[in-house]
Amino acid sequence: MPLLAASVACAPALAQDAKAGRIKASSQCAVCHGQDGIAQLPTAANLAGQQEMYLVKAMQDFRSGARSNEMMTVVAKALSDADIANLAAWYSSIKVTVQPPQ
Amino acid sequence: MPLLAASVACAPALAQDAKAGRIKASSQCAVCHGQDGIAQLPTAANLAGQQEMYLVKAMQDFRSGARSNEMMTVVAKALSDADIANLAAWYSSIKVTVQPPQ
Repeated sequence: MPLLAASVACAPALAQDAKAGRIKASSQCAVCHGQDGIAQLPTAANLAGQQEMYLVKAMQDFRSGARSNEMMTVVAKALSDADIANLAAWYSSIKVTVQPPQ
Repeated sequence: MPLLAASVACAPALAQDAKAGRIKASSQCAVCHGQDGIAQLPTAANLAGQQEMYLVKAMQDFRSGARSNEMMTVVAKALSDADIANLAAWYSSIKVTVQPPQ
């Protein structure tokens, strides 16, 4: 079965990252940002469907102190580069559709 | 017709603000953030359906320099308090539905 094994090993890395990100998001981010990335607090951002690069930069900026927020400044300090990549993969994988008011 | 006049004058302010915000957004924000608040650049945020308080703070922070971004640092300097309120009313009025990956 070497061919099958090879095809499994070459499964898209993004899916793995998103899955790990979903698990971490569920335990550490969902209280404020919602299980599906829709904010639960008026001062929190919707993360669902944000672009991966934007999300990575936001978390890096909170971690470095370039961007400041009472909650995120604390939370981001504990995020590794892998955590940030996984969380960005997860939130950016959520499809968003918009409906402007008439 | 004093009663009718009064009821018109008491129409929700939010709708007026959102309409003004839509016009301003269309001319000044849409190139990066899309006509409906969905980002057109990988480093730009989706603004559709973000909460009003979050949006106001984001624009105020870019304007004050508390938050920094190559584009927004320039754009936000030209926004009045009314512009910020109107833009926040507009983008927060866009309904968003999410569909997480299976």
